Amino acid sequence: MPGTKERIMETTAGLFRRYGYTGTGMKQIVAEANAPFGSLYHHFPGGKEELGTEVILSSGAMYGALFEAIMDAAPDVPTGVSHFFAGAAETLRQTGYEDACPIETVALEVASSNETLRKATAEVFESWTSAATSRFTAAGIPEARSRELALSMLAGLEGAFVLSRATRDTQSLDAAGAAATEAVRAALP
Amino acid sequence: MPGTKERIMETTAGLFRRYGYTGTGMKQIVAEANAPFGSLYHHFPGGKEELGTEVILSSGAMYGALFEAIMDAAPDVPTGVSHFFAGAAETLRQTGYEDACPIETVALEVASSNETLRKATAEVFESWTSAATSRFTAAGIPEARSRELALSMLAGLEGAFVLSRATRDTQSLDAAGAAATEAVRAALP
Repeated sequence: MPGTKERIMETTAGLFRRYGYTGTGMKQIVAEANAPFGSLYHHFPGGKEELGTEVILSSGAMYGALFEAIMDAAPDVPTGVSHFFAGAAETLRQTGYEDACPIETVALEVASSNETLRKATAEVFESWTSAATSRFTAAGIPEARSRELALSMLAGLEGAFVLSRATRDTQSLDAAGAAATEAVRAALP
Repeated sequence: MPGTKERIMETTAGLFRRYGYTGTGMKQIVAEANAPFGSLYHHFPGGKEELGTEVILSSGAMYGALFEAIMDAAPDVPTGVSHFFAGAAETLRQTGYEDACPIETVALEVASSNETLRKATAEVFESWTSAATSRFTAAGIPEARSRELALSMLAGLEGAFVLSRATRDTQSLDAAGAAATEAVRAALP
């Protein structure tokens, strides 16, 4: 059984995905995590902002690790990209269109209202962009082009999450996944 | 000078873009709109949900009209797509990375928590997808391929808004815009 801090962070990550930062209350977190209220401030003396920052960074790292694992398992880079989008679509359908990008709702909410949290989301997006850029560069695509492809792939994924969650279907993930896969394949030497 | 109802809707649209649905309070709306509190419930008897629905639909219609105007003014469809992304990037830079998609933050917040508002966002996304599909079809691209291109273009735009607002630069809009322009050009007969 995970410790109190881990339970708080996991619960918060789930609530952020579904309801965002503003829509997630501290009381709701301790209730769902089955943790005493005092433990929240014990582990996160900076309160909701400190907890939010840690959850953003750790969710980002986990999702980044998922990307690496899927790319490692794929026979080639375009297939890996295709598998990543297909896996995201499958997860979305299985979770009733709840479980998409772990930090996206929060990123939009805090972009113009909380610099500390905004910087944490920017750090995560940059780490994902760098990871994808490295994969494409390793496959022989020039650095600058690799970064463009990484950015447009990530944009397509994040935007398709918004559309898919709103429309309750994964058409846009399929379309964005096919476009990203095609673009990467076309750029290979 | 616009009437009270219009002022309330414009103010709310601006607040939704910056802070989202949950982060926008009724008191904040009447204060910024310089409207008496009672007028809010007079014009929107259903309260925040009714106001939110009307703002989502009207923001969606305005943004759709902007897309049509830019496409009308462009010499050809790929150039129109390129201009649309360039305009979005310019607006984002000029507004300190605040003014992106009018309904995106709200769409993510309500996707798993408010069916009425979720359906309004889905309706808007579908109207934009249809508008872009029609443009591509009119340029001679087959219907099914036009819809795929419209979905991946819109996904790229929405995702690039998230990344650009978080990272405070428009690299991802440039990359997603170039990818969408290229894909549309390649699909032309």
